Amino acid sequence: MNWNYSQPVKIIFGNNKIEELHDIFNSLGLKKGILICDPIFKSNGLMDKILDFSAGLLVETFYDITPNPTVDSVDSCAAIMREKNIEFAVALGGGSSLDCAKAACSVCKTPYSIADFHSGSKRLGSEHIPLIAIPTTSGTGSEVTPVAVLSNPHSGVKAPLVSDNFFPSHAIIDPALTLTVPAQVTASTGMDVLSHALEAFWSLNHQPICDALALHAAKLVFKYLPIAYADGSNLEAREKMSEASLIAGLAFGLPKTAGSHACSFPLTNLYHIPHGEACAFTLDAFTKINAEAEDGRLHEFARAAGFENAYKMADTISEMKKAMKLKITLKDAGIPEDNLEELSRLSQHPNMLNNPVKMNVESILKMYESLI
Amino acid sequence: MNWNYSQPVKIIFGNNKIEELHDIFNSLGLKKGILICDPIFKSNGLMDKILDFSAGLLVETFYDITPNPTVDSVDSCAAIMREKNIEFAVALGGGSSLDCAKAACSVCKTPYSIADFHSGSKRLGSEHIPLIAIPTTSGTGSEVTPVAVLSNPHSGVKAPLVSDNFFPSHAIIDPALTLTVPAQVTASTGMDVLSHALEAFWSLNHQPICDALALHAAKLVFKYLPIAYADGSNLEAREKMSEASLIAGLAFGLPKTAGSHACSFPLTNLYHIPHGEACAFTLDAFTKINAEAEDGRLHEFARAAGFENAYKMADTISEMKKAMKLKITLKDAGIPEDNLEELSRLSQHPNMLNNPVKMNVESILKMYESLI
Ligand SMILES: NC(=O)c1ccc[n+]([C@@H]2O[C@H](COP(=O)([O-])OP(=O)(O)OC[C@H]3O[C@@H](n4cnc5c(N)ncnc54)[C@H](O)[C@@H]3O)[C@@H](O)[C@H]2O)c1
Ligand SMILES: NC(=O)c1ccc[n+]([C@@H]2O[C@H](COP(=O)([O-])OP(=O)(O)OC[C@H]3O[C@@H](n4cnc5c(N)ncnc54)[C@H](O)[C@@H]3O)[C@@H](O)[C@H]2O)c1
Ligand SMILES: [Zn+2]
Ligand SMILES: [Zn+2]
Repeated sequence: MNWNYSQPVKIIFGNNKIEELHDIFNSLGLKKGILICDPIFKSNGLMDKILDFSAGLLVETFYDITPNPTVDSVDSCAAIMREKNIEFAVALGGGSSLDCAKAACSVCKTPYSIADFHSGSKRLGSEHIPLIAIPTTSGTGSEVTPVAVLSNPHSGVKAPLVSDNFFPSHAIIDPALTLTVPAQVTASTGMDVLSHALEAFWSLNHQPICDALALHAAKLVFKYLPIAYADGSNLEAREKMSEASLIAGLAFGLPKTAGSHACSFPLTNLYHIPHGEACAFTLDAFTKINAEAEDGRLHEFARAAGFENAYKMADTISEMKKAMKLKITLKDAGIPEDNLEELSRLSQHPNMLNNPVKMNVESILKMYESLI
Repeated sequence: MNWNYSQPVKIIFGNNKIEELHDIFNSLGLKKGILICDPIFKSNGLMDKILDFSAGLLVETFYDITPNPTVDSVDSCAAIMREKNIEFAVALGGGSSLDCAKAACSVCKTPYSIADFHSGSKRLGSEHIPLIAIPTTSGTGSEVTPVAVLSNPHSGVKAPLVSDNFFPSHAIIDPALTLTVPAQVTASTGMDVLSHALEAFWSLNHQPICDALALHAAKLVFKYLPIAYADGSNLEAREKMSEASLIAGLAFGLPKTAGSHACSFPLTNLYHIPHGEACAFTLDAFTKINAEAEDGRLHEFARAAGFENAYKMADTISEMKKAMKLKITLKDAGIPEDNLEELSRLSQHPNMLNNPVKMNVESILKMYESLI
């Protein structure tokens, strides 16, 4: 078996690490930065706290970011970076804020709009300013991946853009920042973590280092997500979910995701289901579909994670979804049966090719039809 | 819990990857290299094969290397590098050849002897030429660590030297290269892998990413080392041991090793026990000593590795040592009981401070006295 591995992001993990930002920037020789953050932190005071901790090294802010960030947000942010000669960026938020920042750090070094790169009409060079990513959800793992998922409201396309530029130089994981995440966001983002771990493991591009990390992350989610959902103030559970999110990010960075993520894209675009919940919508179904693939290696994973086999693991995923009030049926998700053919067609995203059981429109349709 | 992680080495894994050396060097823009290798490969033809595969990009060779490589070897190699304006190096061999090459790649950029840095009288700057490490044993994990263990025959000191320079730029792991490793070297180096995994896990500097990797590596050793020992031509077992060695190297790089490695240094220096066998000599004893430490987290590890508890895992280690004809008792190792006090004193190497159960000369002595 042939595989490669490299992982350039430097990781700093610990509660209240944001209090050391000034020292961290100093040790890296970083001088003139912009803070790019979710608007919620403008309102709740965290943005100002971060500016305080940075003691003058963050000279600008940008927080015009929506969930499923747009190419327009990226361009506005890059315009400020160009105008003010910004030397580095700090991204604070969930995947949406991190992805917006990742793209802005590269496009600011070009005269173009990110839309040109998103559409594929131009290709990014290697120039970019360094990014320090500080996730505030336990979900995407975007702090260690080379991916930015962007939406173009003019063309209607939501798609990932991939570039080695997008690896943050540093990821600072401060679990205490996730204490304020609302229960439904905890549930959705937590299931995103589980999807990353499982799909990294069963992706046709799986490889040993990522397998080991995927198992570690999945075990944590099964144990700690129900606790973090039930009691958002439980710091231990938040810490373990931060650890799981980061490590699942490392796990799927190279093998990439598969069937559930492929299906999540139209589920989010057409039915506005949040990313993690959209992945979870088919995760138990794909766990059953993939159970016997490649000599049943998923059964071994399930046993190592404490289950009798992959089918029992799928049942636990279904129960977790129910307990956390996530959408389970087509009816819950507001998907009319008439739309299933279109949905199945649109679910044939390239990630579907990583699924260990080959899927086509018919088998995807059959899978959706089972979700009643 | 606070922890950091970074891992700069790019990993390329696969049987017969050495056949792609020319392409790999080319893709990295590398032009004028030296091949540093174990003398055994001069005799058995592998050195010439590597030169062939590199198609002119390796212009020099150096193979004056002994197990437990000396500062003199490093200096001779560096002298050639300086004289011939060598731009990169390829190291081919076990830990001994890799460590010699790692040190030479840095010292060649200075006018000094490596002995000055090894003794601590000078400190290495960051200048060095890039190294591509190709391990031929499944043991040290040196291809992904910042450590070079060197001996100074003039002062009698064998000690590790640590520098970020020593991270190879690339590690190429070609399991087929280990097919020729003799059974006793397979046994010794294989137990080195297990020591790295277990000690990384129980080191007081343990951290989650390394924990996940340590578990993955240990499971592989328990399953595949007996097979690779019994039948060195079993390519699957060799592959899995190469994977285990690499991943255990990633696992201990940051947490470092603990009690068994601390004891291994005097065992090698005074009693000439090969490195891995010297680690294995106390590994079962330390597994029992550390079983209850830190709320018994080692029991959890043992259960995840398929054992009832850490004591049963220790028993399996003892059985593996016996089955592979490794030294078990003081008598086997040629250690007179009168020497145990000196041995215990010398076993207080800094790594002993990482052991989760605090050890002192008395408790180390008691441990050695149990090995009868
Ligand atoms: N780059 C990648 O590798 C990658 C991987 C998977 C998904 N994604 C993308 O990331 C986006 C989703 O990111 P996400 O799931 O983290 O959600 P998000 O960033 O959209 O945030 C979700 C909600 O939580 C709120 N929020 C975030 N942190 C909070 C906190 N600490 N306290 C209170 N509220 C908080 C936000 O304001 C928002 O309303 C999607 O666009 C998805 O496609 C990217
Ligand atoms: N740098 C690190 O991180 C690190 C970690 C642990 C140990 N070490 C050091 O590494 C050294 C031990 O390395 P090692 O255990 O790999 O042994 P080694 O390099 O000394 O090799 C052991 C023996 O195996 C032979 N050999 C190697 N590859 C072979 C092959 N493919 N076919 C046939 N014979 C082969 C060698 O000729 C030698 O006789 C020690 O000096 C130890 O202190 C370094
Ligand atoms: Zn996702
Ligand atoms: Zn070792």
